[in-house]
Amino acid sequence: MNCAQLLHGVEKGDIMQSYNKWIKWGLGALAILALIGILVFFGNYFSKNNVDNSHDTVTTKSNGKNGVQVTGKTNNSNYKTVIKNGHYLTSKARGVTASKNNNQFNIISFENGLLDFSKDHFSPSDYVFQEGQYLDSNTANDWLGRKSKDNPNGLNPNDNKKTDSSRNPIYLQTIEEQDYMKQKDGKLELGGIVLGLGMNTEDTYQKEQYGANFVQKISAEDRVAQGKEMAQEVVQRYRKMNGISNDVPIVVAMYAQAPDDSLAGGNFYSWNKSASGDKLGNWNKLNYKTVTLPIQGSQDDPNQKSPAADLNKSFTNFTNNVQNFFPNLSSVTGQATYKDSQVKELNVTISTQFYSATEITNFANYVAQVAPNYLPKGVPVKISISSSSNMQAYVTKQANDDKYTTTILGNN
Amino acid sequence: MNCAQLLHGVEKGDIMQSYNKWIKWGLGALAILALIGILVFFGNYFSKNNVDNSHDTVTTKSNGKNGVQVTGKTNNSNYKTVIKNGHYLTSKARGVTASKNNNQFNIISFENGLLDFSKDHFSPSDYVFQEGQYLDSNTANDWLGRKSKDNPNGLNPNDNKKTDSSRNPIYLQTIEEQDYMKQKDGKLELGGIVLGLGMNTEDTYQKEQYGANFVQKISAEDRVAQGKEMAQEVVQRYRKMNGISNDVPIVVAMYAQAPDDSLAGGNFYSWNKSASGDKLGNWNKLNYKTVTLPIQGSQDDPNQKSPAADLNKSFTNFTNNVQNFFPNLSSVTGQATYKDSQVKELNVTISTQFYSATEITNFANYVAQVAPNYLPKGVPVKISISSSSNMQAYVTKQANDDKYTTTILGNN
Repeated sequence: MNCAQLLHGVEKGDIMQSYNKWIKWGLGALAILALIGILVFFGNYFSKNNVDNSHDTVTTKSNGKNGVQVTGKTNNSNYKTVIKNGHYLTSKARGVTASKNNNQFNIISFENGLLDFSKDHFSPSDYVFQEGQYLDSNTANDWLGRKSKDNPNGLNPNDNKKTDSSRNPIYLQTIEEQDYMKQKDGKLELGGIVLGLGMNTEDTYQKEQYGANFVQKISAEDRVAQGKEMAQEVVQRYRKMNGISNDVPIVVAMYAQAPDDSLAGGNFYSWNKSASGDKLGNWNKLNYKTVTLPIQGSQDDPNQKSPAADLNKSFTNFTNNVQNFFPNLSSVTGQATYKDSQVKELNVTISTQFYSATEITNFANYVAQVAPNYLPKGVPVKISISSSSNMQAYVTKQANDDKYTTTILGNN
Repeated sequence: MNCAQLLHGVEKGDIMQSYNKWIKWGLGALAILALIGILVFFGNYFSKNNVDNSHDTVTTKSNGKNGVQVTGKTNNSNYKTVIKNGHYLTSKARGVTASKNNNQFNIISFENGLLDFSKDHFSPSDYVFQEGQYLDSNTANDWLGRKSKDNPNGLNPNDNKKTDSSRNPIYLQTIEEQDYMKQKDGKLELGGIVLGLGMNTEDTYQKEQYGANFVQKISAEDRVAQGKEMAQEVVQRYRKMNGISNDVPIVVAMYAQAPDDSLAGGNFYSWNKSASGDKLGNWNKLNYKTVTLPIQGSQDDPNQKSPAADLNKSFTNFTNNVQNFFPNLSSVTGQATYKDSQVKELNVTISTQFYSATEITNFANYVAQVAPNYLPKGVPVKISISSSSNMQAYVTKQANDDKYTTTILGNN
């Protein structure tokens, strides 16, 4: 049957029938368009006046400079964050904690560690991260000070004027608030608070102004006992703050600072939760440990066997392999973070003398090739390569990828 | 026909026939096994005594510390490199070129640029990279010096004792040899040489010892003319060297150094090839350009329209977006490399003031999100984020991937 025959076969009645069909289709289509219109209207209404609900995209200028927005997120393991009036919403106590810390490794491991810790309590798929908005700089400074007539809110003990081991040390070095927000009906609502308390393991003081530095060690027993009391006090004070309702969960994580001269940061050692009201629950142990590689000294002593003994062995093999690449030896050190005897993260630093850009490029490619044979799989690894001539390279892998990527940098 | 019927149908003659078949098969199989044995034997022989032929794997200790090996390669765009006696085979003129260069950007763009340039002439899938083994340090120093009684081999003109614009400047600043090897019958054979000549665009000198620095500009005309003569002379000298046969191709690439105070490296501007013998062929133009972003000044002037005008616009939008993230402004600069009006690579540097590790983490994640909306696709992009408190982050993507990955680093 060709086209002409087909057309001849169409009778008048058929044509009427198809008219009817078209009318029905048309009405249906109009109804759908109207529904879409209403949905679009309300969608715009909510996103313009409140919080942008879009996932996985970045809210930029379209929503204007006013009001609160959230950033998109790059993947499921990162929090979305809060943008207010076009800017990142910074902490109310911005800069207080950082300036109180002499060891840069402590800052990074404390603050990013707290962010990681929070993921177990407030999942990034349900909550938006907001820098602490309840504790302001002045209050934070008061709390971190010693208790005195002028500063009745000081959490650290009063100055007992002693300059020997009977001296009252500064126990609480730093305090960090992180807010976890829920998106509800297009608005942001406080869903929970995580407080990090950074406790000193030693305290540096002077016997006279501008005098020599003395170091007072703080026993683990004292630190833990003092920390428990302070955590209880801090939660009580938070409950009284404006905007924090009685049933917003407050989680407290306790961190032991590494000494100022340590090459690694400190570790979180316990946490507690106030589901509602003033009371804390039971203390839960956190078993974090930072190990500097290669392990010095007594790792062959079976009584001192470190959970990192195996890693140390393969790290040493990695080092031997890499050190032999150039005729001149390079120095290789590592920092492994453990949680419950499991490696969580490994950072490696290689310093060597390079004489040309092709050397550093080929060295970085070589490191990327041999690293999978020696270094742990399934955890993020960062290898930073630096040379005295300021050229730098990074060889990194993510937790979920065992292929290393190399990045060569000039001097910045 | 079921199984029983099938078996009944087999006569005695058939059984004899299948015996014969088995014997034939058996003999055939034995012959093949013997052949495999011989191949394996010779394969082992070559790989043990000469060069390891394995692709995509790393040759490590198994082949001992003696002899020549090649590293595996991470992907098809990187060269395999040469390991000799267990070490990376460094250049015979190691350190000569680097020490002659005051601008770090020149070193990286010259040496890595030469490596990239070579890929068009000696493909990484066919050739192995070897640092230059023919020009040694002493010879390189002589060549880079001025011609004089003591140094008849100096390629730079004699000192005419002038201290004004009639002074003979140092035209040739640096020389770099790269060898491209072929793997043949398990041995490495020289397959081609690439020479990079770094020409000065200005020369710094003192009128008296320890006196003030004066800068003598070198015109493009002079630089190109001098470079052509020097390239011809260098190729003639290479042909006379031990181990370089008459028909090994020698490719010369000419590089114009950026001034010492430039924030970007220089550019390759031409190349030539001696397929065999002393003679060079025709000079070919190389159209590389390094543009510092944002472009200052007259980019709105249509006569001065840069190939980077569009990139500059989107870079400025990127900068505005990123600068607004924190209440305190950050500085954002970029360096784009162009080849024939096409972006080849982009490096971005962001400096800002961070007050906490969560700020830099969230900032880096934000940058990784917005970058794809503004920065070029299909080329490698490196964004380095640094803060006055020494925390650093890198946001990078490869050419063939448009997803950015973030790396947060402590201070090293």
